[in-house]
This record gives sequence, structure tokens and C-alpha cells, in this order.
Amino acid sequence: MARLVLKFGGTSVADPTRIKNVALKAKAELDAGHQVAVVVSAMSGVTNQLVEYCRQIAPMYDAREYDAVVASGEQVTAGLTAMALQELGVQSRSWQGWQLPILTDDVHAKARIKSIDGDEIAKRMAAGEIPVIPGFQGVSERHRITTLGRGGSDTSAVAIAAAIKADRCDIYTDVDGVYTTDPRIVTKAKKLAKITYEEMLEMASLGAKVLQTRSVEMAMNHRVRVQVLSSFGNAVGSDLPGTLVVDEEEIVEQEVVSGIAYSRDEAKITLVRVADKPGVAAKIFGPLSDAAINVDMIVQNISHDGRSTDMTFTTSRTDLDRAVQVLESNRDALDYERIVADKGVVKLSVIGVGMRSHTGVAQRMFQTLADKGVNIQVISTSEIKISVLIDEAYTELALRALHTVYGLDATQ
Amino acid sequence: MARLVLKFGGTSVADPTRIKNVALKAKAELDAGHQVAVVVSAMSGVTNQLVEYCRQIAPMYDAREYDAVVASGEQVTAGLTAMALQELGVQSRSWQGWQLPILTDDVHAKARIKSIDGDEIAKRMAAGEIPVIPGFQGVSERHRITTLGRGGSDTSAVAIAAAIKADRCDIYTDVDGVYTTDPRIVTKAKKLAKITYEEMLEMASLGAKVLQTRSVEMAMNHRVRVQVLSSFGNAVGSDLPGTLVVDEEEIVEQEVVSGIAYSRDEAKITLVRVADKPGVAAKIFGPLSDAAINVDMIVQNISHDGRSTDMTFTTSRTDLDRAVQVLESNRDALDYERIVADKGVVKLSVIGVGMRSHTGVAQRMFQTLADKGVNIQVISTSEIKISVLIDEAYTELALRALHTVYGLDATQ
Repeated sequence: MARLVLKFGGTSVADPTRIKNVALKAKAELDAGHQVAVVVSAMSGVTNQLVEYCRQIAPMYDAREYDAVVASGEQVTAGLTAMALQELGVQSRSWQGWQLPILTDDVHAKARIKSIDGDEIAKRMAAGEIPVIPGFQGVSERHRITTLGRGGSDTSAVAIAAAIKADRCDIYTDVDGVYTTDPRIVTKAKKLAKITYEEMLEMASLGAKVLQTRSVEMAMNHRVRVQVLSSFGNAVGSDLPGTLVVDEEEIVEQEVVSGIAYSRDEAKITLVRVADKPGVAAKIFGPLSDAAINVDMIVQNISHDGRSTDMTFTTSRTDLDRAVQVLESNRDALDYERIVADKGVVKLSVIGVGMRSHTGVAQRMFQTLADKGVNIQVISTSEIKISVLIDEAYTELALRALHTVYGLDATQ
Repeated sequence: MARLVLKFGGTSVADPTRIKNVALKAKAELDAGHQVAVVVSAMSGVTNQLVEYCRQIAPMYDAREYDAVVASGEQVTAGLTAMALQELGVQSRSWQGWQLPILTDDVHAKARIKSIDGDEIAKRMAAGEIPVIPGFQGVSERHRITTLGRGGSDTSAVAIAAAIKADRCDIYTDVDGVYTTDPRIVTKAKKLAKITYEEMLEMASLGAKVLQTRSVEMAMNHRVRVQVLSSFGNAVGSDLPGTLVVDEEEIVEQEVVSGIAYSRDEAKITLVRVADKPGVAAKIFGPLSDAAINVDMIVQNISHDGRSTDMTFTTSRTDLDRAVQVLESNRDALDYERIVADKGVVKLSVIGVGMRSHTGVAQRMFQTLADKGVNIQVISTSEIKISVLIDEAYTELALRALHTVYGLDATQ
């Protein structure tokens, strides 16, 4: 007997038939003796349509009005889901963000949740009622409707789970869990039964399609157990068919490497023969930061001649042209010889909390890539991750080789 | 310099381009020195789609959840309209029913407005801001979203106009005013510059397409001057291009007859040789009332033989079959010879407050119809209206003849 929050994404509530299916899953958990709350996204496509209306009317729209407009999508599905539950004989009602309330700051269109009053719904859940709460939306202290930014429904669900001290937050989506790597590329990829919060955050480039980063951070901070699972098929969350995102201590036998992520949204920029003197990095990255361009990996080579060096860094492909522009407009201050820009790169990341206590993980990666003739252009590491930038052409080859070397291949 | 409420229906806010047009009209009134508030319906088609979702999920849906679902359509257009006004440099914001608040009873799906707090928006209007309020919706004392029933946005607009003591409530729609009769049938029909509340209520069969009956009753009770006008073209309400619905005293030269309405949604039922004794009418109409069948005109002929009479009445065509069923199942109690049902009838109504002080209006109607060979089947009258039931085949002929006789034909 557990207290559960079930969250259903846009494809899971895309039409009345699927909403009825959502109600069946929630009722199955209730019938099994659990306490249940449901959080829903807007029907898939609806939010995009509403955003498009806003853009057509005012390219620089008022974020407060934008929030009033786009929050309506979740209002609709919450009402419909409560109806579908009632139709199954379950006590249910919808709770808009302003009714609960879900109090947020007033940074409209990307608000952060400040507090949730979960007392009333917790009381009703204990009495066998299923509250249905629209994801993505809240209300500011000024009584204006706010939204949490795209994908914010995951964050809503985890925050509600934290507020009512739920035993688990099940995120029903269109994939059946988190995999060791992208199964479209590596057919031997395995679904993970469990993964730690930290690993899930690092898997963002895979996981972004599955779970919003902010929701994982919130789950980690509040120690909310999260399960990613498919809304299709007959399984419900309590069968544990998906991937559990949990605290490290809950994973008894931790693999050294849990998964391998990759990102094609990478571009490499090298400033050749930039002056090698104190403050040069600040002069390069200050203007980029001012232009809101995110820089990821940074490598500064040793000096060629005691006076100049090569500075290499990566950014997203969409930001590449702007980044080059910013650097060219600062050419005089930076005093470099030339800029080399390259979009043909990919970032591979080997991830695992087990790395903390195991050595040789990086060496094994480098050796494997060397054996396959893959040149490593840039390296960066964190406590639980090693990332390398390589030629995009080697993506599949490298992914498969690393997947095998770290013992991640499915046995069947 | 006046205080105005402008209400725009679903076709007037059907897409972003039309919403921008709404903003232009509101700004034009502001620029002319008026104080302006805007009330909007949902985009045309949206409410029907939302109602259809509800029906698909739960044929006997919970009206509270239905209200949460369908109120979202107006939430969207209110936000978009405020954005469009801001884009024109006008200070504006949307006010949801629960934010203002528009307090209603909790008869969900057909709630009645109890009170509106207009102080805040009146203050802002005086400062040059344009508040945008979604029509159709309110909030109950239990903090649940309510709606006023189909067409309720007109009622919202009039109620808001009453709350802020507006000088006029302009109802922008897809027709350019109220006509002496249906211009599709009588090409010489004239647009009325003014019409009284009482006449507008009687014109409901024409006016229903133009103005919701409840909104006219509310306008009459609170003495709100209402204008019906087209949202297409360049004219704005202050040019007075439409039809003003006003108090009788405001109309200096009152025509005896203001308009001629007709309704094809009529069916006639005659109970032949029903027992002519006290209580028979109650026995007939009690069961019909219990079955929620609306009865309109009633005629009881004189007794044939001192023991039996013919009872004729009209109902809507959609209710005819059910009405006959009810009567047949009560045959023993009613003791009639047979039922004659007829769908081939139409109701013509000559309407005008001037009738109160003029005689001969009815006689003129009867004579005109007689001259054209039109047989009158049933007659009913009120202080400002004479209605007759005739064979449907004579509809156009009779309408045109009466329109001419009462001097309503356009002179051009």
C-alpha cells in the first residue's frame, strides 16, 4: 500500500480514448490498495498550437498573457481525466494550479515552484478519491497564472509527490524506460531497472526525451523515487516495468558504467594563435556569455612559442554562427590569427557513479577508441562522467564498441 | 467621452488576424477618448470541440469538470486579445472569471451571475488601460470554475457593463444589427436604428441569432444600453452603425409595429373530442410539463355538445414525437377521441410597443392574411405582440404582405 503520483504526458492524453486508458491505469492502482493522484500534460500538439497563436499575435508577447493562454491545455485534460475516472465509478475532481494552490515565483513562462499546499488532496487521497492536477501550471502571489517552461509537467509531478510525501512518482511516457544507450543505434542496448539521480542528470542528452532535467534535480533534492515507464500496454507502475530513478544507496550492485550518452548538437571552435597572457580566457568567454551563448568543453593547448596558444571550445550547433560573429567583432581585443569552426563533431559520454571507486575507466575508453582508429579531439571529465569529442562519422562505431567494452550489451 | 464594454463573438476572434482586428477597434475607441473594456467569446468551433470531448468521455459528465474544460476557450482568447492590444501600445491585461472575480451560483453549466467586482477594472479603465475579460465563465463561492450556458458571453458583457456603470455595451457579431424581419426572405427589410428591450425579447426568434435572451433581460433590468453591430468593416460602436437596444423612453417616434418575427420550429397538436370538464387542461399539460416539453400557444374551442371539446396547442418540432407519446400513454385519463399532429405550420409574430396605445393592429393583420387567402389556425396575443399559426407554405407570402402593410418596407 503506497501513496503514488502518476504523471501522463501529451501522447498519453492525446484524445478521449487515451484519456480513458489513463483513467483505467489510475483505477487499477487504486483497486490494488494504493493512494493515487494524477498529473496530466496537455493533449499533444495543443501547447504548440497555442504558442503559435501567441507568436502570430505578438512576436515579443507578454509572458503573463502567454501563461494564461498556454496553461489552458492542461486545464482541459485535467477536467477530462477527472470525468473519465468518475465514469469508472472513482471519486475524482480536477484541481487547477490556482485552486490547490501551486504557488510559484512570478518569472512567467519559466516560473519555479515555491510551495504546494498538498493537505487537501492528501486527505482526499486517503479517503479513496483521485485528485487530478494539471501539470506545467501554477499561480503567482499576484494571483496570475504561471507556467514552468516546456516539459514542466514532469517537474509539477515530482513537486506534488514531494509535497504529499508520495512513495513514488510514475512518469508515464511513450518510451518504456531509460536505456544504457540509444537502442536505435545500439540494438544490444538494455533497459535499466534502476539508475541514480546523478546518472540520470548526466544522461540528459538521452534523458531529455524522457525526463526534464529540472524534474530530476527536484527529485534528487527531495529524494522522490521516480519511475519512467510506458503508458501503452497493460502494465501499471506498481508492477515496476520501467526504470526507477533513485538514490545511490538503493542500488545494491552498482555497475561501473551505467550508460553511454551522445549528443550531435555540438560544434567546435578553435581560436588559432591567440595571445597567451593572463585574462585571455575571460576576454574570450565574457562576450560569449553576454550573448547568452552556452560554452561546454574548453581546452587550452600549451603555448607554441611562449606568446600564443590555441584555444578550443564547444557550443551548440545552433549557436555556432553567432559565436563566430561575437569572436570576430572582438578580434582586435583577442588578437588571434584565425578562427576554425567545425560542425562535424559528436560528444560521447560514458556515465556511471561507480567511476568514483574504480580506476581505469577513462583509459579503457581511450584505448577502445584508439583501437578503432577514432581520434579524440577534446576530453572533459567529471566525477561520474567522461566525455570525448570525436568526428561525427564515427558515432555509431564508437558507441557500439564502448557499449560492448563496458559490458552493457544485452545477453540475449 | 463614454465608458464602454465591447463584446466580440466567436467569429470575431476566430483566428489571430481577427483578434488583431478586435484590438484595432478597441484602440480606436480608446483613441477617441472613451474608457474601454473588452469581453471575448472562444474562437468559433472551439467550445463545440471541447463539449464533444466531454461527451466522448462521459455521456453524463460532471458539470463541474465540464465547466473547467469548456471555460478554457475564453481563457485563450482573452490572453491573446490582451497581447494584441499591448502590441498596439495599449496597456492591457486579461482577467479570468476567478481573478476579477465574477461570482456565480454553483448551478454548473448554466450558472447565474450573483455579483461582479468591477472596482479594479473601472479604476484601470479610468487610467487608460483596457481590461480583457473572458465571457461565459465565472467562479462559484466554492472556488470552482462555472459557465453561464451557451451564448453566455453576451450575458457576461451586459453584467460587466452594469457592474461598472458603462454608458453602452456594444455586442460585435456577424450581422450588422436587428432587422424589421428576416432580410433573406423580405428584401425590403430595414435595419432598425433602435428597438426597446421588450421588443427585442419578443424578437427572440429572430434575435436569438443576434443576442441571447438572458442578456436582454439583464440589460432591461439594469437599464444597460446595448448595441448590436458587425465586427467586420471599419465602423466602431461609437459611430452607432448598429441597432441600439434601449429603454422605451429613449425612442421618441415609436412605430406601432417594429418588426415581424417568424419561427418554423413549431408543431401543432389537437386533441379531438376531449372531455370538457374542470381540470382537463391540468391533466393534459401536467404530464407534458413533467416531461420537460415546452408548450407555447394553447386554444380551447367551445364545446361541441356540452360534454367534449377540441384542445389545440403548439410545441417545438423536436418535442412533437415525445409529446404525442406522453398524451397516448395518458389516453385513459384524458378520454379523447384522437390526436391530430401537424409539423407543417409556422408562427408569425407582429411586435411593437406602440400597440399598447394603438388599436386595430390585430384587425389589420387578420384582414391582410385573409386578403391573401391565408387561413389562421391559432392566435395568441400579448401586450406588445400578436402571433398567429399558419400553414408553413404561406410563410414568405404572409411575411412580405405584413411587412408592407405595417409600413416597414425600406423606401429605396
